Amino acid sequence: MRSHFCGLVDESMIGQTVVLCGWADVARDLGGVCFIDLRDHEGIVQVVAEPAGTEGNAEVVAAAQKVGYEDCLRITGIVRARHAVNAKIRTGKVEVVATRIEVLNKAEPLPFHAHENAGEDIRLKYRYLDLRRPEMQKMMRTRIRLVQALRRWLDARGFQDIETPILTKATPEGARDFLVPARMHPGEFYALPQSPQLFKQILMVAGFDRYYQIARCFRDEALRADRQLEFTQLDMEFAWVREQDVQDAVEQMIREVFREVIGVELAEPFPRMTWAEAMRRYGSDKPDLRIGLELADVADLVKDCQFGVFTAAANDPHGRVAALRIPGGATLSRKQIDEYAAHAAKFGAKGLAYAKIDAGGAVTSPIAKFFDGDGFAALLQATGIGNGDIVFFGAGAYNAVSDFMGALRLKAGRDFGLVQEGWKPLWVTDFPMFEWDEEAQRYVALHHPFTAPAVDDIADLKANARTAVSRGYDMVLNGNEIGGGSIRIHRPDMQSAVFELLGIGREEAEAKFGFLLDALRFGAPPHGGIAFGIDRIAALMAGTESIRDVIAFPKTTTAQCLMTGAPSPVPEAQLSEVHVAVKPPLR
Amino acid sequence: MRSHFCGLVDESMIGQTVVLCGWADVARDLGGVCFIDLRDHEGIVQVVAEPAGTEGNAEVVAAAQKVGYEDCLRITGIVRARHAVNAKIRTGKVEVVATRIEVLNKAEPLPFHAHENAGEDIRLKYRYLDLRRPEMQKMMRTRIRLVQALRRWLDARGFQDIETPILTKATPEGARDFLVPARMHPGEFYALPQSPQLFKQILMVAGFDRYYQIARCFRDEALRADRQLEFTQLDMEFAWVREQDVQDAVEQMIREVFREVIGVELAEPFPRMTWAEAMRRYGSDKPDLRIGLELADVADLVKDCQFGVFTAAANDPHGRVAALRIPGGATLSRKQIDEYAAHAAKFGAKGLAYAKIDAGGAVTSPIAKFFDGDGFAALLQATGIGNGDIVFFGAGAYNAVSDFMGALRLKAGRDFGLVQEGWKPLWVTDFPMFEWDEEAQRYVALHHPFTAPAVDDIADLKANARTAVSRGYDMVLNGNEIGGGSIRIHRPDMQSAVFELLGIGREEAEAKFGFLLDALRFGAPPHGGIAFGIDRIAALMAGTESIRDVIAFPKTTTAQCLMTGAPSPVPEAQLSEVHVAVKPPLR
Repeated sequence: MRSHFCGLVDESMIGQTVVLCGWADVARDLGGVCFIDLRDHEGIVQVVAEPAGTEGNAEVVAAAQKVGYEDCLRITGIVRARHAVNAKIRTGKVEVVATRIEVLNKAEPLPFHAHENAGEDIRLKYRYLDLRRPEMQKMMRTRIRLVQALRRWLDARGFQDIETPILTKATPEGARDFLVPARMHPGEFYALPQSPQLFKQILMVAGFDRYYQIARCFRDEALRADRQLEFTQLDMEFAWVREQDVQDAVEQMIREVFREVIGVELAEPFPRMTWAEAMRRYGSDKPDLRIGLELADVADLVKDCQFGVFTAAANDPHGRVAALRIPGGATLSRKQIDEYAAHAAKFGAKGLAYAKIDAGGAVTSPIAKFFDGDGFAALLQATGIGNGDIVFFGAGAYNAVSDFMGALRLKAGRDFGLVQEGWKPLWVTDFPMFEWDEEAQRYVALHHPFTAPAVDDIADLKANARTAVSRGYDMVLNGNEIGGGSIRIHRPDMQSAVFELLGIGREEAEAKFGFLLDALRFGAPPHGGIAFGIDRIAALMAGTESIRDVIAFPKTTTAQCLMTGAPSPVPEAQLSEVHVAVKPPLR
Repeated sequence: MRSHFCGLVDESMIGQTVVLCGWADVARDLGGVCFIDLRDHEGIVQVVAEPAGTEGNAEVVAAAQKVGYEDCLRITGIVRARHAVNAKIRTGKVEVVATRIEVLNKAEPLPFHAHENAGEDIRLKYRYLDLRRPEMQKMMRTRIRLVQALRRWLDARGFQDIETPILTKATPEGARDFLVPARMHPGEFYALPQSPQLFKQILMVAGFDRYYQIARCFRDEALRADRQLEFTQLDMEFAWVREQDVQDAVEQMIREVFREVIGVELAEPFPRMTWAEAMRRYGSDKPDLRIGLELADVADLVKDCQFGVFTAAANDPHGRVAALRIPGGATLSRKQIDEYAAHAAKFGAKGLAYAKIDAGGAVTSPIAKFFDGDGFAALLQATGIGNGDIVFFGAGAYNAVSDFMGALRLKAGRDFGLVQEGWKPLWVTDFPMFEWDEEAQRYVALHHPFTAPAVDDIADLKANARTAVSRGYDMVLNGNEIGGGSIRIHRPDMQSAVFELLGIGREEAEAKFGFLLDALRFGAPPHGGIAFGIDRIAALMAGTESIRDVIAFPKTTTAQCLMTGAPSPVPEAQLSEVHVAVKPPLR
């Protein structure tokens, strides 16, 4: 239907007749001569309809005068050099003099104009118009090139791309499963996979050696700002490996893919940090190293003061008193300080102390009064505060303080322009094996229940569960956990011991994970792997905050597709066929 | 953990120390010298544990003596030339003298032996052991190479790999939808896609120009012998094309992929046949051209006989009387002929007439008596029957006769060894636009409701709906429909007219397909595409009858996963969270 792409017409074609297909980006009538910017996925070319001259004719001008925004056109014409060169576009040295204009499909008046940035709801409802915009095309195509580059790397190294089921068994791993009623088995349900975790482990037992999949995963969670019900991960697993084997391979992969897709050189090798160090210095298990700020531990300097919140935490072996200095932060008003306190509260802070020193050296701090003698001066000195700075202090349980002080660090980094340009990857390792859930009075797995502990000895693990370290690792980039993995448990006795520590009884373990325990009994090799969040990596590469910009048909934060109207009611008869009925929520 | 793969150890390594990981395929103790066949995904190498000599030691022999089938081992040893060369395996000129044997994971006694072909149920329950078998590894790896080759071809040609949603809107297209209750929207449901059909059309409206996806699709149908609840298709769509553009591109793709993956040269170009010709000559819209047999139309020769079944069909403009000659078929006994009749009955035959001529020239036929004079001889002559042959006759409605005679043709082809070796691709084109559903007294779409008719004129289509031809096309290979596609409707008025002809009222059309109609209103380009069945193509390439051999974790014909136990009951509390309750089936 066409001889060339609009965006690729150039001087080499001058004098040639071309047939182009595209959309009318803009159409202007300048006193009987019409100009149409014709657009396809490669770009824009200027089309001219003119009454006089060798190529033009009145019929073409009449057709051009009727062209409206986003009409779908097929235009035959002759390429000629352009008088006024447009250096901004690839085709800027030429124009096409139309000899024929066919309207393949007339566009109705648009709900929003392609050049404006309309509200997200209207963009999602008319997603096809939104995606037609060059900015969206560019972001989506970055994602596509990312996935291509990953596959090329993996295919060249013997990784086997294997599909695992979408209709599978409900195996709660923390998040909620999506359920699918089974028509042939009344009262029974399939579940959509939260990840192919168990299947990829089984594939290692099955002798596939190296596996990958660009896998769709599903979590029925409340949609936080930037989560989707379904998301895509690059899922990988390796047999006969230790953590360094996995880490070295995928670090090289990520480095090469960033170079290839967006021309960025990541550090070689990535810095490494234990989970404990990350929490201590940055108050986060995914520190954004583009922000230079660090937390300082000051428990020793406050343990004898008269401020009970400080002394309680400072004298508790599981407590923490941390300080965060913000250079230039003394400009914060009382109201702004309250906003910082409110932000910290969202992350679990019960209060937030501070001290600031103005440009002239005057100190303001509501907690100075709790210190005797040189105590407060010593504390300030330990934080590194100088004229014009502010310091925030947090006190309480170790992990809680780390969390909210880490959140303040990120906010301060953004508010004060302290986020450096560039890319800061790192490995975080040596995660705790378990977290103690106070409410449920039992351990929960920090990664998942199939993560191997650092120790091989079951008795040792049981005796020291609270401080046990796992063989898990995360890849972090600019404050985002872009990949997470571990060496898995490959011995059935160790797997049973971990289930037991997690309060999963023998019967429950057999019912839910019996097939995994079986598989481990028949010569399972040592194995490990990792999964990368494709949506997030694509968003980072495309330079957008929202993963919705790199998903063709995303859902809203209320779990709806505004274009198709999903989810929607279903006739009762159709529900009966799958043996369920709607049960209204309790009020 | 290892220095080399087991299956790749060769003479170049003689004298070297290697570290190998794998499974004990066979272990034999020959009077104090132990032999272990160590296997990984690349193949097998012989390991020797011997007490005397430079490399061996008693400890290694003791370890080797305890090795059992499928134990997971790590073996360090020295490569040396083998006395008795085994020409059957790649490593057959060498063996590895073990200096250390580590048991990484002991295997319990196996539920079935890897070298036997156990029942399918036990193979599916212990799928990891089944997949470890070299035959299964080979078939699965053929599928993986198929998908890789397809992607490489598509990526090189600018096709954009775009993911479409799995949680989408219920839009009945014939088969049943899988439903997923929406937790955030009580009483509402998502549906799993039967195909990404509408999304890929929307992507063309959105300006992506060329799209593909290796897409998971879902159909909640009774599982026929070789269907799965979820299956994989290569889904493709092209903007600004006519059917020949699509067909030429994908024919080249399939030809190149067959050459690359299994070294087979397919015909160039593929033969082409209209749907009408395929039904007339082969009684099938996906004829297996490896079988030379063809149907003969004999209505003219029977329309005046005294056999009412024949005359009724012969004189009905929508009737058919067809004959199928089977060379050598006179050997069929009365009982075997009854089996053929029963087979035809399964495909809708109400009876089956025949005539046979034995080697000596004697004719047997229950219908000879219905003909006067030379009538029967003329009929026999028209069928081409010779000594030793049988001819079957079918009469009734045109499509019904075609169906069951086509089924007989396939059975005869197999029973009499008339299926030629090799690969017979073809295009089937010019499908009817609609089928008349007698029961529902309305038209149904032969492809799907988005397929364009051959005529552009709405009035013409409405006036001649019964005989209207669509712009659909199927790619057929050895009797399998491996791909199906069409040029789509891109004008909203034509799409509305087709919905109307299919009895989908304006309100229903807006509710179900409103977003498509909207999209067509904003400058949708002409577009078309195709979808290929990856499971079936992989099975054909791997030389297996069952697609289950090329799916890592297939479900049974009763829709169960025997390994994980899906589907399974779910606690009522979990169902309440998603606002449904189980409703027992009516008895």
